[in-house]
Amino acid sequence: MKATEQRLEEHLILEKPYYLAAGKEVEIALAAHKNGLPLLLKGPTGCGKTRFMQFLAWKLKLPLITVSCHDDLSTSDLVGRFLIRSGEAVWTDGPLTLAVRAGAICYLDEIVEARKDTTVVIHPLADDRRELPVEKLGELLSAPPEFMISVSYNPGYQSVLKDLKPSTRQRFVAISFDYPEPDTEAEIVAIEGGIDRKLALSLVKLAGMTRSLKESGLAEGASTRLLIQTGQLVRDGIDIHTACRAALIEPLSDDPELLAALEEMVSSIF
Amino acid sequence: MKATEQRLEEHLILEKPYYLAAGKEVEIALAAHKNGLPLLLKGPTGCGKTRFMQFLAWKLKLPLITVSCHDDLSTSDLVGRFLIRSGEAVWTDGPLTLAVRAGAICYLDEIVEARKDTTVVIHPLADDRRELPVEKLGELLSAPPEFMISVSYNPGYQSVLKDLKPSTRQRFVAISFDYPEPDTEAEIVAIEGGIDRKLALSLVKLAGMTRSLKESGLAEGASTRLLIQTGQLVRDGIDIHTACRAALIEPLSDDPELLAALEEMVSSIF
Amino acid sequence: MKATEQRLEEHLILEKPYYLAAGKEVEIALAAHKNGLPLLLKGPTGCGKTRFMQFLAWKLKLPLITVSCHDDLSTSDLVGRFLIRSGEAVWTDGPLTLAVRAGAICYLDEIVEARKDTTVVIHPLADDRRELPVEKLGELLSAPPEFMISVSYNPGYQSVLKDLKPSTRQRFVAISFDYPEPDTEAEIVAIEGGIDRKLALSLVKLAGMTRSLKESGLAEGASTRLLIQTGQLVRDGIDIHTACRAALIEPLSDDPELLAALEEMVSSIF
Amino acid sequence: MKATEQRLEEHLILEKPYYLAAGKEVEIALAAHKNGLPLLLKGPTGCGKTRFMQFLAWKLKLPLITVSCHDDLSTSDLVGRFLIRSGEAVWTDGPLTLAVRAGAICYLDEIVEARKDTTVVIHPLADDRRELPVEKLGELLSAPPEFMISVSYNPGYQSVLKDLKPSTRQRFVAISFDYPEPDTEAEIVAIEGGIDRKLALSLVKLAGMTRSLKESGLAEGASTRLLIQTGQLVRDGIDIHTACRAALIEPLSDDPELLAALEEMVSSIF
Amino acid sequence: MKATEQRLEEHLILEKPYYLAAGKEVEIALAAHKNGLPLLLKGPTGCGKTRFMQFLAWKLKLPLITVSCHDDLSTSDLVGRFLIRSGEAVWTDGPLTLAVRAGAICYLDEIVEARKDTTVVIHPLADDRRELPVEKLGELLSAPPEFMISVSYNPGYQSVLKDLKPSTRQRFVAISFDYPEPDTEAEIVAIEGGIDRKLALSLVKLAGMTRSLKESGLAEGASTRLLIQTGQLVRDGIDIHTACRAALIEPLSDDPELLAALEEMVSSIF
Amino acid sequence: MKATEQRLEEHLILEKPYYLAAGKEVEIALAAHKNGLPLLLKGPTGCGKTRFMQFLAWKLKLPLITVSCHDDLSTSDLVGRFLIRSGEAVWTDGPLTLAVRAGAICYLDEIVEARKDTTVVIHPLADDRRELPVEKLGELLSAPPEFMISVSYNPGYQSVLKDLKPSTRQRFVAISFDYPEPDTEAEIVAIEGGIDRKLALSLVKLAGMTRSLKESGLAEGASTRLLIQTGQLVRDGIDIHTACRAALIEPLSDDPELLAALEEMVSSIF
Repeated sequence: MKATEQRLEEHLILEKPYYLAAGKEVEIALAAHKNGLPLLLKGPTGCGKTRFMQFLAWKLKLPLITVSCHDDLSTSDLVGRFLIRSGEAVWTDGPLTLAVRAGAICYLDEIVEARKDTTVVIHPLADDRRELPVEKLGELLSAPPEFMISVSYNPGYQSVLKDLKPSTRQRFVAISFDYPEPDTEAEIVAIEGGIDRKLALSLVKLAGMTRSLKESGLAEGASTRLLIQTGQLVRDGIDIHTACRAALIEPLSDDPELLAALEEMVSSIF
Repeated sequence: MKATEQRLEEHLILEKPYYLAAGKEVEIALAAHKNGLPLLLKGPTGCGKTRFMQFLAWKLKLPLITVSCHDDLSTSDLVGRFLIRSGEAVWTDGPLTLAVRAGAICYLDEIVEARKDTTVVIHPLADDRRELPVEKLGELLSAPPEFMISVSYNPGYQSVLKDLKPSTRQRFVAISFDYPEPDTEAEIVAIEGGIDRKLALSLVKLAGMTRSLKESGLAEGASTRLLIQTGQLVRDGIDIHTACRAALIEPLSDDPELLAALEEMVSSIF
Repeated sequence: MKATEQRLEEHLILEKPYYLAAGKEVEIALAAHKNGLPLLLKGPTGCGKTRFMQFLAWKLKLPLITVSCHDDLSTSDLVGRFLIRSGEAVWTDGPLTLAVRAGAICYLDEIVEARKDTTVVIHPLADDRRELPVEKLGELLSAPPEFMISVSYNPGYQSVLKDLKPSTRQRFVAISFDYPEPDTEAEIVAIEGGIDRKLALSLVKLAGMTRSLKESGLAEGASTRLLIQTGQLVRDGIDIHTACRAALIEPLSDDPELLAALEEMVSSIF
Repeated sequence: MKATEQRLEEHLILEKPYYLAAGKEVEIALAAHKNGLPLLLKGPTGCGKTRFMQFLAWKLKLPLITVSCHDDLSTSDLVGRFLIRSGEAVWTDGPLTLAVRAGAICYLDEIVEARKDTTVVIHPLADDRRELPVEKLGELLSAPPEFMISVSYNPGYQSVLKDLKPSTRQRFVAISFDYPEPDTEAEIVAIEGGIDRKLALSLVKLAGMTRSLKESGLAEGASTRLLIQTGQLVRDGIDIHTACRAALIEPLSDDPELLAALEEMVSSIF
Repeated sequence: MKATEQRLEEHLILEKPYYLAAGKEVEIALAAHKNGLPLLLKGPTGCGKTRFMQFLAWKLKLPLITVSCHDDLSTSDLVGRFLIRSGEAVWTDGPLTLAVRAGAICYLDEIVEARKDTTVVIHPLADDRRELPVEKLGELLSAPPEFMISVSYNPGYQSVLKDLKPSTRQRFVAISFDYPEPDTEAEIVAIEGGIDRKLALSLVKLAGMTRSLKESGLAEGASTRLLIQTGQLVRDGIDIHTACRAALIEPLSDDPELLAALEEMVSSIF
Repeated sequence: MKATEQRLEEHLILEKPYYLAAGKEVEIALAAHKNGLPLLLKGPTGCGKTRFMQFLAWKLKLPLITVSCHDDLSTSDLVGRFLIRSGEAVWTDGPLTLAVRAGAICYLDEIVEARKDTTVVIHPLADDRRELPVEKLGELLSAPPEFMISVSYNPGYQSVLKDLKPSTRQRFVAISFDYPEPDTEAEIVAIEGGIDRKLALSLVKLAGMTRSLKESGLAEGASTRLLIQTGQLVRDGIDIHTACRAALIEPLSDDPELLAALEEMVSSIF
């Protein structure tokens, strides 16, 4: 077990992350942080929510502790648990408790995937009490002013069942994310994928076409991330059609008809 | 593990909480406390139930121990459990047992989210026996006269499945909460949001409009808490439209049509 | 952990409980006890089943060990379990085993809420074997003649799913409880609520009206307990309308139409 | 933990149980035992299956180890488990292993209630291998010739879901039980209930009427056991109508219409 | 805990089992063993699959380790687990690991009853890798050439839900079993049941009639095993009708109509 | 517990695996590895996905750590857990952590069978962070450049329920596999099955016919693996019809009609 300082250092973002703002999201997030309000990020897969959090953490000079939520994430996974050392129960802070004690940012990615107890454990942290009851220690931690809690989810494919309860939602300041504007997106793809701007623009155009397929049953269109990965394969010598198939089409669907439609889109552009 | 006295002190409310009574709720709660009767608070999200409990605890000079209920809250989480220390099983009181021993107020927030065993464990405490059987210790605790148990829930979005059983409900004195009157609410928003009364009144008017959307499918209208958070963003320099979008509209829904209707409401007022 | 004698003493009822018999329930229960037969009490919420058990225990001078049943009550919760002390597994009797060893009365409240293993564990105790196999100890306890097992449930809101199996039911002598006769009920409400007989009679009349609402969708009418609690609020200076709303109407339902109907009933009487 | 010999002695039946044979069930069971075949008893609640097993065990001079099956009975509950003693894992035989080692009769009551792993664990014991693999010990026990496994269930109210699988059923010699003939039943009721033969005959007649109600929705008619319990109440001075209501009618149903029909049957006879 | 050699010896089949081959199943199984291929046996209850495995193990002079699969069989039950001895975690091989290490035959009876993790854990053993990853030890065991894995199930009453996945099925060489030819079956019944050949032939004829009832709703017809058990009862002096009822009819069904049809079949033959 | 170096050595593939490329899958995989991108393999049972991974690992000279996914595979099974040694909790790396630390290839076979927490635990490894948070150690591991994560599944029989979420899919470069071309497949079958090319071609033709039965309800046609196994039986002296039945037909289905159709196909060819 590493010491706490060491654990936190690993989560500091030292280099300025590459981030192009689309609106006033940075100002809103800074005002929310100043008022001790929690942040909720909505938006599709791979559109930059995680990158935004990295940028914000860099700007605030705070460690960013990210937790990917899922069905089996228990309260103990977040808050902490006792481990047996030499026959003694030794307490180990979970990522949320670590963030509260250190005044870091705790980012719960895809919060709606979590079980309800995870969602509820953040309630007293997310209103004006800003407290974390660590029941197994019998402690009630008060969050320092630097601490911020942030959650994200993708409203596009949530089932009603997993929707956030109003009593949870209404604690947050919420920012809606979407894919970047074509020019911005092409710039990102060119820089991160290592290809020229013209090819990047063609890939962005292709992505736009796949995003329109959502009404035809595609769960989600190609993300910026997929475009970057396609670019990387091309840069390494894979021909454009093979690269599109491997890095852009096949990751989107297994449905033969959708795959055929996607192939046609590639052919129409390249 | 902190000592019990220390644990209780953390739960004492030393400063008078800001609370504006809407009816006779304070008198009823004091009479219930005097007769050793448990309290049930009903009402929508963010309308002041938690604040009311803080006010009551301050008035009675009793520690307030709050438990946010959820699906996975077990009886042991409430009553206590054995922890292993140097190979010994050491008992640790849960929040409910702590409150019973100390004669504090135990407040179970969103009780209907809890599993049935949580609801049932409070039965002998909530009738004239006022006893808590701590079965793992083989003890039967008698609650001192100061002890009070209080539960809350939101009748607006409970599923039938999770409804409280009559045998549970009929143990409580029940108080129904609603949003404050417009003038009262504007005063709260102005004071807590740090904005002028005129803007506060406009926000309250907007909130009323969102609350009427409940019949159009909105799970719940904007709470007083959301108005306060909107005010805080404006106070920190975010323009009113951006602040409303981030702190009032986006937290309410992901549905494009409802979002559009909410945007229009904002435009009609600001 | 307290010693067994101490644990049992806590369960002795020293003062004669206030109980008005409605029929031959006391004689039947005494004959069942004499013949070593188990007892099943049926009836609505708050009509006096628990009080009857207290009276019977007082009359038989036997400790009364009550267990509130629920979904998560395991066989170990009833029979006992091993706890680790100084690295040793030390056995701790559960309430049922404690009652069998001591020849006490064990009362399982709301038995149909329990899991099937709870219902089945009492089978050999509830027929002429009167044995409790404590499998984890490898012991087979024979119940002394004083021991009695008693269970209760409310036939009014049981789902078919949770019905008792015939093989369980047919082990019991069964007594059906209902609300007391108006005069008897008024006497109880006056004495326990600390109000005059006239007001008590009006409350009983009101209760009768709420009980007739069962056909209109009310899960259950006002119990005697609710009338007593209403009386207590009035005695402490809450006006009659406010007291009825807080202690009698709101605990019954969240349905706006039913609440309105209940309010009208109050207005027609007071 | 008692020693094994002591545990077994508790299960020996020293006094001849009162049992009137209805057919050749004793001969069949003895032949099955002689050939090392397992026994399956079918029949309604309280018709004498358990008593028959006690008689058979007495006749074979073998200990009878009974296990009431239920949903949560695990393989470990039957076969055994390790318990921690002074930091050592000490093995404790479960009832099935105990019976196999000692050559006793193991009787699994209401086998269809058990989970599938319970049903499957008896497979190698119930065919010509007659072996019990105790996997946690790495042992393969061979049952001695005296060992017998016997199971029972009530075909009247099994759900299809819980039906025994053919691969389980086809290992057993099966005997079907029913209520005794009226004369036999009256003799049993008179002797065990302590009442005269005439009253016993009337009770048997009444039982017959209730058994015909099965087609009108009654889960099961009155068992011989209920008649005996009614007799016992009458012997102790409870009048016949009150005794029938408490010991015969109320245990059968909660349905108002069925209860009324049952009351009428009582009135037509007494 | 017995030593490994001792554990294996218990599983060696020393006497040649009585087995009459119906086709080329022995040759196929030997060829599969020679090529290191796993074996899948399909067929109805009690038709000789287990006996065939005993014969094969005897012929190959390999220990036969049989595991009856069920819903609650975990990977640890198959692969092994750590047990605490004097405060140390001591590893204990499960039956599958034992068989892999020793080069024995591991026979998983009724594989479709097992949870998916059981089915998946055999994948790397059942293809050309022939490896067993023992993850808790961090070991990757290579099976010696003698090792064979064999599974069985009854295709007659599998639900679609529990069907084997193609990725599991397509690893096996599969042999389909059925009831023996009448003459063969009569020989088996006469020898194992201890009755003359004529009676055995009549029983086989009766069995054939019951097997045709499958289309009328009988889950499965009488197995050879049931005929043998009927013979054993007759040999011990039970008359043929009583023996058929107890050992052949009642084990097949609880349905009154099917039971009547089966009774008629008995009467038509005896 | 073996030392880490030893554990890794077991996973090195020393001999060049027999693999015939069907397209550009090797180039794509090498480019993905070079860019630190994760790999997703789609395709039917037994078409060579596992063999491809072995080939890739051999080519990259990296250890290949394979995990067969299933419903009960927990995050701890992948990441690691504490084991008790002499009263101390000693950490043991799971296969995924082992692969990350050592810079090996981790191949999750049939990923869609895994629980969501398994799918989510690879998220931070599968995007440009390439980190594995080992929460129980409080460590955040950075994967070295050699490390690669690869997953596979069969899109042919996935339920919608178990489909990969877009946020998971869109992290991968995906390659679609299918059965080899007839000539290629015959070469593989001849070499690995040890039969002549003509017979191999006939088996491939037969396989093609079974694959067309998919539209008639067959879950999946015969894989290359089944053809090899059929060849092996023939090489060892089993006649071609018996070999086809045992190694090719019976493994495909239990449905009598499909089995008949498959038999006919065999007869039409041999």
